[in-house]
Amino acid sequence: MSASPVLVVGSVAFDTLHLPSGSHPKVLGGSATFASLAASHFAPVRLVGVVGRDWPGRATRMLGDHRVDTSGLEVDACGDTFHWEGKYASDLSSRETLATDLNVFADFSPKIPAAFRRSRWVMLGNIHPALQLEVLGQMEESGLVVADTMNFWIRGELPALKKTLRRVDLLVLNDEEARELSGEHNLVRAARALMRMGPRIVIVKKGEHGALLFEGPNVFSAPAYPTTEVMDPTGAGDTFAGGLIGYIAGRGNSRHETLRSAVIFGSTLASFCVEGVGTSRLQSVTHGQIARRVGRFQKIVRFGPDAKPR
Amino acid sequence: MSASPVLVVGSVAFDTLHLPSGSHPKVLGGSATFASLAASHFAPVRLVGVVGRDWPGRATRMLGDHRVDTSGLEVDACGDTFHWEGKYASDLSSRETLATDLNVFADFSPKIPAAFRRSRWVMLGNIHPALQLEVLGQMEESGLVVADTMNFWIRGELPALKKTLRRVDLLVLNDEEARELSGEHNLVRAARALMRMGPRIVIVKKGEHGALLFEGPNVFSAPAYPTTEVMDPTGAGDTFAGGLIGYIAGRGNSRHETLRSAVIFGSTLASFCVEGVGTSRLQSVTHGQIARRVGRFQKIVRFGPDAKPR
Repeated sequence: MSASPVLVVGSVAFDTLHLPSGSHPKVLGGSATFASLAASHFAPVRLVGVVGRDWPGRATRMLGDHRVDTSGLEVDACGDTFHWEGKYASDLSSRETLATDLNVFADFSPKIPAAFRRSRWVMLGNIHPALQLEVLGQMEESGLVVADTMNFWIRGELPALKKTLRRVDLLVLNDEEARELSGEHNLVRAARALMRMGPRIVIVKKGEHGALLFEGPNVFSAPAYPTTEVMDPTGAGDTFAGGLIGYIAGRGNSRHETLRSAVIFGSTLASFCVEGVGTSRLQSVTHGQIARRVGRFQKIVRFGPDAKPR
Repeated sequence: MSASPVLVVGSVAFDTLHLPSGSHPKVLGGSATFASLAASHFAPVRLVGVVGRDWPGRATRMLGDHRVDTSGLEVDACGDTFHWEGKYASDLSSRETLATDLNVFADFSPKIPAAFRRSRWVMLGNIHPALQLEVLGQMEESGLVVADTMNFWIRGELPALKKTLRRVDLLVLNDEEARELSGEHNLVRAARALMRMGPRIVIVKKGEHGALLFEGPNVFSAPAYPTTEVMDPTGAGDTFAGGLIGYIAGRGNSRHETLRSAVIFGSTLASFCVEGVGTSRLQSVTHGQIARRVGRFQKIVRFGPDAKPR
C-alpha cells in the first residue's frame, strides 16, 4: 500500500553560506525544500511555494527524482528566487544574517492546486501565520496539520499566529520560541500552555539537546544524535519537521507510538542533513543509512529494565 | 550482602537562599552534604569535611540517621561553618552570589581517617584540585574515583586540575565546563578530549536537558525528569553525582550497564532534590518514590523497537 502524500507549504530559496569549511554561493535551501526532501524518504510529497526566473530546471528535476510533486511550485518571472546569505561562527554555535533578499517571496500567496486540496498530511512551513491560515482555508479536506513558527512571528504577528494555532494539530518550535510564546520558562509548563492555544501535540526542538514531545499527559524525550561531523546546520529544523510528518504519513497514522518514532526519524534525518552543505546529504542518504542510525538511537537511550535501587 | 561504603569528600555549608518562594537563612548545604545524602539511598557513606563552632548536633544526628558516618567530619572551633548566600531569578534560570564566607573551609585540608583509607568508591566533591589530589594521596586502596569540578578551577588552577584528572576514573562536569576544559564546542568531541586527560568515563550534566555518559565508544543520553515543581535548584549537580556513585556502590560494580542506570538514578535523585528547599527533599524521599520515578524515566525515553522507515 502506498503512503498518502504530504502537502508541504513554505519557502524555497537559494542560500549563500559562509561556513568554517568555506563559502558556498546560492545553494538550494528554504524551509519547504528541506522539509520536502526529508519527508520524501517516507512518503510522496506535494510542494507549494514560489521561485523566480533564476530557478534552474535541474532543481525541479532533482525534486521530481525524490518523488516531490512540484506542480504547486509557482515560477514568478518578474523576479529572482528568495535569497538568504549568512555567516556561521567557527564553532557553528551561532550565525549572522548578511542579506535577506525576499524577491518573489515578498508577495507569496500560496495557491493550493485543486489536486492537492485533499491532503491527509499538511506541513505548514515557517511562513507568515496569516499565509498558513490561508492555506488551511483552501483545503477541502485535511487530516493532521503540522505547523512550524519562529520568534519573528511571535514578536510581530501574535494575533495572527494565535488565530492560526487554533487550527493546528501539531506545533513544532524550538525551546526559546516555546518560552517566548507561552511566557513560561519551564518547558513542561510552556508546552501545556501552548496546548491550551490549540495544538493537541507540541514538539519542542532543543538542537544539540534533542527534542521533547508532549501529547496529553505523555512526555517523550528524544536525544540528539551525538554527531561530531557537523558541516552546515542550515535547515536542520525544517528537516526535522519534514522527516517527522513524512514518517507519520508513511505509517499512515498519528498514534502516540507513531509520533515517538516520528521524532526519532525526524532527528535522524536532521543529523544527516547537517553533515553536508545545504540539501546535499538529504539527497544522498539511503534507507539503509537511516535505519542503521535509528538503531543507534535505540542504543543511546537504552538502560536496564531491571534498574532498581538495590 | 551489604554495599561497600562510599567515601565523599567536599564542602559542608550553610546556604542562605533567596528563592522566588521566599528566603531561607542558613539551611544545610555544601557539595559533600548533598552528595552524601543522595548516595546514602543506595549505600553507606563516609563523609570527610570541615564545619565550624556553629555546627548543630542535630545536623550530625540527621546525617547519622541516613547512614552517613560523620567520624571524618572535622569540627574547627576557631570559626564558623562555610556560608554561601545567593539569590535566584524569578524563573530559577540563573542566580547571583550575594556572599561567600569561607570561614573554616578556607584552610580545609582533608584528613582521611585511617578507617576510611580503603574505600572502594571515592567521590571527590567540587573542591580545589590540589585538595582532591591530597585525598587520593592518603588512600591506601581505592576503586572507582569520581570527581566533580567547576569553571573556577578550570580558569584558575588548570595545571593542578590536569594533574588530578590523571588519577580520576569518572569525571562529572556540566556542558559549559566540558567545553571550557576541552576547548571543543561539540560535546562529543569535548568528552573525547577530556578522556585523553585521564578519566575513562566522562559524564556531562546539561541541567534541564539531562546528561550524557561517555565510556570508550559508548554514548548514553539520559533525559532530565520533566518536572514542573522546581523550588530550589541548589545542590542538584552534587545530588546527581552522589546518587550516581551511591547507585554504583549499591550494585557493587561499574560495568557500562550499571553506569547507565546510575545516571538515571542520579537524575532521579536530583529531580527530587530541587522540589524542596536545601536538602529537605533528599532527606524525605523514599525508595518507593525513587523506584516509581525511575519507572517514569523508562516511559519517557521508550520508542518502538519496530520503528522502521516503512
